[in-house]
Amino acid sequence: MNNHINPKYKARFKKRKSLSAKNLLEQLIKGNKVALSQAITLIESNQEKHQQIVDKLITSCLQHSGQSIRIGITGVPGVGKSTFIEVFGKHLIRNKKKVAVLAVDPTSSISRGSILGDKTRMPDLVKEKNAYIRPTASGSSLGGVARKTRESIILCEAAGYDVILVETVGVGQSETAVHSITDFFLLLKLAGAGDELQGIKRGIIEMADAILINKSDGENQKAAKKAQMEFKRALHLYPEKKSQWTPKVKCISALKNKGIPKVWDMIESYKKTTVQNKFFDQNRFKQQKFWLYDSLNQKLKQSFYENPKLKSKLKDYLTQIEKQEISSFKAADQLYQYYIDSIKEK
Amino acid sequence: MNNHINPKYKARFKKRKSLSAKNLLEQLIKGNKVALSQAITLIESNQEKHQQIVDKLITSCLQHSGQSIRIGITGVPGVGKSTFIEVFGKHLIRNKKKVAVLAVDPTSSISRGSILGDKTRMPDLVKEKNAYIRPTASGSSLGGVARKTRESIILCEAAGYDVILVETVGVGQSETAVHSITDFFLLLKLAGAGDELQGIKRGIIEMADAILINKSDGENQKAAKKAQMEFKRALHLYPEKKSQWTPKVKCISALKNKGIPKVWDMIESYKKTTVQNKFFDQNRFKQQKFWLYDSLNQKLKQSFYENPKLKSKLKDYLTQIEKQEISSFKAADQLYQYYIDSIKEK
Repeated sequence: MNNHINPKYKARFKKRKSLSAKNLLEQLIKGNKVALSQAITLIESNQEKHQQIVDKLITSCLQHSGQSIRIGITGVPGVGKSTFIEVFGKHLIRNKKKVAVLAVDPTSSISRGSILGDKTRMPDLVKEKNAYIRPTASGSSLGGVARKTRESIILCEAAGYDVILVETVGVGQSETAVHSITDFFLLLKLAGAGDELQGIKRGIIEMADAILINKSDGENQKAAKKAQMEFKRALHLYPEKKSQWTPKVKCISALKNKGIPKVWDMIESYKKTTVQNKFFDQNRFKQQKFWLYDSLNQKLKQSFYENPKLKSKLKDYLTQIEKQEISSFKAADQLYQYYIDSIKEK
Repeated sequence: MNNHINPKYKARFKKRKSLSAKNLLEQLIKGNKVALSQAITLIESNQEKHQQIVDKLITSCLQHSGQSIRIGITGVPGVGKSTFIEVFGKHLIRNKKKVAVLAVDPTSSISRGSILGDKTRMPDLVKEKNAYIRPTASGSSLGGVARKTRESIILCEAAGYDVILVETVGVGQSETAVHSITDFFLLLKLAGAGDELQGIKRGIIEMADAILINKSDGENQKAAKKAQMEFKRALHLYPEKKSQWTPKVKCISALKNKGIPKVWDMIESYKKTTVQNKFFDQNRFKQQKFWLYDSLNQKLKQSFYENPKLKSKLKDYLTQIEKQEISSFKAADQLYQYYIDSIKEK
């Protein structure tokens, strides 16, 4: 296939590929979507040379970033996240906002295909000049995915996007990761048959700054109101948030475009409140500290466990431990000494 | 006070203190309680020279250890742990066993006094030739306490104790630590007013190999039977244990010496079952692996965070992060590089 490409295009393609960090930065700051996409592709690459370009790029972008509001959105499949993001995004664009949609999908590495971030899921939003939709960042670890998403957020902000929507599916610990890279956490729910609180992880409810009961239209409205009441009651049981924000529960219908402006008003009011009481910036700094410690601890562990020589030593010690020749603690002491020596040797 | 000590005793005291590792080992293997106590005192010391003696001692003791059954015992204050250990210990001694009682008490570092392991709590057992009761091992971290207790177990076993009782109070994560250094985990409970399952951490019930409903005597017996039923039902909800052992629920009265022999019969039957199906040794090896990884990871972290130079670098980076001059991930990369360089420099 490649051989049939018009040489002119091929050249252009190559040229695009080889944009330097400086060119990328210039284009990105101007809001060039192609440059933004290329930069995010570099973030997702595991090649050393790409990482070096990205590192420079992100450091330069940092000064241009941070001015947005970052909104985490979660909910089980079928709750209507795509429809919500589509109508919510369009509402924001009408309000002169630039909207970026990113997705964290911990399942995509297994299914080898993204269930999130698929542009065809948001057919109207994707056509908007001021919307940028980026398919899933995936990675081998949650920390890795979070890092890539966090870096993508910085680039989007530098490109002038002022509302960043980070979508995740209610699987595993992805919510925790998304919660720790966003300012406001939205949980989408459906009204059920009275058992609204069943099967929801306590931790996710606790993280939510707002719960939206979606598909609150037609015959569903009564059940939605009931669910709203139940969630309000449940939220009362949690201690007050450090943000001093009382989590809200709202009935909406993304499909019927009902209640959407209220959601944005709420988020603006959240930002105003938390900027005033200083929580907004404190929380962002807290998140940055969390990721600093998390990355550093990962690196410290990896530097031992990914060293083939130490791995083989570890195996030897496990055999000795099994034979009762050495205690676990003494073995740990000696392995640690080997680790230090192996670094010195290099 | 010290000045009034008879010089003869003072000399003897000094002499006792200076037992070498070799002497200690000889005496310890012979079952000398004074030597055992001295060795455990060395374990509890944080002095480097004491640690060196202990390291040698434990390595030598390993071959003489491992022949016992290690029983973890937990339950909230007031449940009757001391009384149970006293009568249970005496039953074991009548059955020609040598019994050591150790205690893990995470609260003692706060209260500056041990609530566990106090010899006066077990006035009869402490007089027995074949019983050894050791007050609380405490430490700054749970891992530290577990290490000290685990090493004390090895010494007790080398001194010929064949039943090791490790007592803990139902606070924090101490049960998890005790569970991971013992073979059999006993949970003591009281019959309440029908609400037996309230307020018990799910994790602790899940760890239990047996639940003993204590104080099942007189008017309490009916409530105890009811509690027994409820716990049996609750235990059914958990997946089968890897040991293939079905946790038992028994009514006992430590005070009235009721049901105590049955408890020991049950534990012997557990040992027989799990030795046969190989779980017993596999589990001990699994525990040793756990402590190897746990200690090693602690050491890797400490070698960064307890280095004053790196600590100060970390502080600098946090300031840079707050000023948006560097991303958390990049900062982690660079701090890690400083760490490696600092090791090489030494």
